[in-house]
Amino acid sequence: MTDQDGITSRDRALFEAGIKLGALYHQFMGTPVSMETASKLEAAIEKSVSLQPWVNHVKVRIDREKLRANANQFKYCELNGEMLDVMVVVTYERVEVHARISYDEDMKYPLMRIERITTL
Amino acid sequence: MTDQDGITSRDRALFEAGIKLGALYHQFMGTPVSMETASKLEAAIEKSVSLQPWVNHVKVRIDREKLRANANQFKYCELNGEMLDVMVVVTYERVEVHARISYDEDMKYPLMRIERITTL
Amino acid sequence: MTDQDGITSRDRALFEAGIKLGALYHQFMGTPVSMETASKLEAAIEKSVSLQPWVNHVKVRIDREKLRANANQFKYCELNGEMLDVMVVVTYERVEVHARISYDEDMKYPLMRIERITTL
Amino acid sequence: MTDQDGITSRDRALFEAGIKLGALYHQFMGTPVSMETASKLEAAIEKSVSLQPWVNHVKVRIDREKLRANANQFKYCELNGEMLDVMVVVTYERVEVHARISYDEDMKYPLMRIERITTL
Repeated sequence: MTDQDGITSRDRALFEAGIKLGALYHQFMGTPVSMETASKLEAAIEKSVSLQPWVNHVKVRIDREKLRANANQFKYCELNGEMLDVMVVVTYERVEVHARISYDEDMKYPLMRIERITTL
Repeated sequence: MTDQDGITSRDRALFEAGIKLGALYHQFMGTPVSMETASKLEAAIEKSVSLQPWVNHVKVRIDREKLRANANQFKYCELNGEMLDVMVVVTYERVEVHARISYDEDMKYPLMRIERITTL
Repeated sequence: MTDQDGITSRDRALFEAGIKLGALYHQFMGTPVSMETASKLEAAIEKSVSLQPWVNHVKVRIDREKLRANANQFKYCELNGEMLDVMVVVTYERVEVHARISYDEDMKYPLMRIERITTL
Repeated sequence: MTDQDGITSRDRALFEAGIKLGALYHQFMGTPVSMETASKLEAAIEKSVSLQPWVNHVKVRIDREKLRANANQFKYCELNGEMLDVMVVVTYERVEVHARISYDEDMKYPLMRIERITTL
């Protein structure tokens, strides 16, 4: 399907998936988190992303080993790109995009990538 | 009590209370929130602030009327200073400080203020 | 052009454009800004976005009238979605995407949209 | 000087100094920065902090060696607590507080501390 500007549903679905990943990453980086609070923070991020248009699924995982390794003497650390793994599913009209943030150890980079594009 | 630099426990307690309010405000501003997710977000902010040194109590309230008034067509809005009311209690050695963020309608400003200083 | 997963350069260009808009929005919302500092903040946001992969142009404009209207008694305000207009050009391989954030008064929403997709 | 609640100018000056450090830290963490853009970002943070009430001086330094060490393959990194050194001077009535953020390597912690309190 193409609208008057030549922009398709697939284009929009991908653009929207990118927005969601970029937004959540920069919103939540730096949040204090510990072993005890990690699951609550995961749930709060999921809820917050789910509110946004065209999101139909979000799964957030904070790596507990990295969390432990990064903990300061007060037993917490700031959420950073190394410990975050997020999968978002965006559906725009009939196109479904699975996109993900996960840390690439070689690149030293929280890589955001398209995992799958499906037409329903 | 005074350490070698003339800095007292009371000084430190007030400084730490200010840090906590400034930090949480700028960390969570802009987070997507709705009537359905507000209580989870309040809890996540409370947990996150509680992790930090010398915090012994935090109470976060997001004003539901303002949330409703600010909601966009997707039925959510971004957390902003108008809708946030936070009370933090910091205890440093024997000094307890109650500090608060709440929106001052006249000043158009999310006012952070010291509510009470007590020596235990 | 299609890679082994059926993901094209056009797909990637759109995904990356979305990431940049979502990221900058949530990074800079809440930054204190005034009539005197607005142009420096615009430049700092442009620089920061330009560093990211596949960005070849960024133009940030903070609406001075809204800035003035939002100013508190200390003559500054926090950057918010109402006053921000950003245009980003992302080029991934031979596909160029022009994308934009601007506030939609009717929707009460900082709308992020694809303005143009060109194959070079 | 003591107001009706027993809160002194010194108390307020310390509270305000804490607010400024907590706020800037959580506002700017995660901002993309490189060797080429570091000085502009330092200036933008300084400007933004200077706008706030009772701030009379701010000096921001981003550690260039750590910036280089943290750079990814795209030659930039996200601003983090390890590379940031900030000094803020807050003056409330006749009390001047020098406060600072700098990374404590032993504690693995971006330590915020009071450096000096002076009555003018």
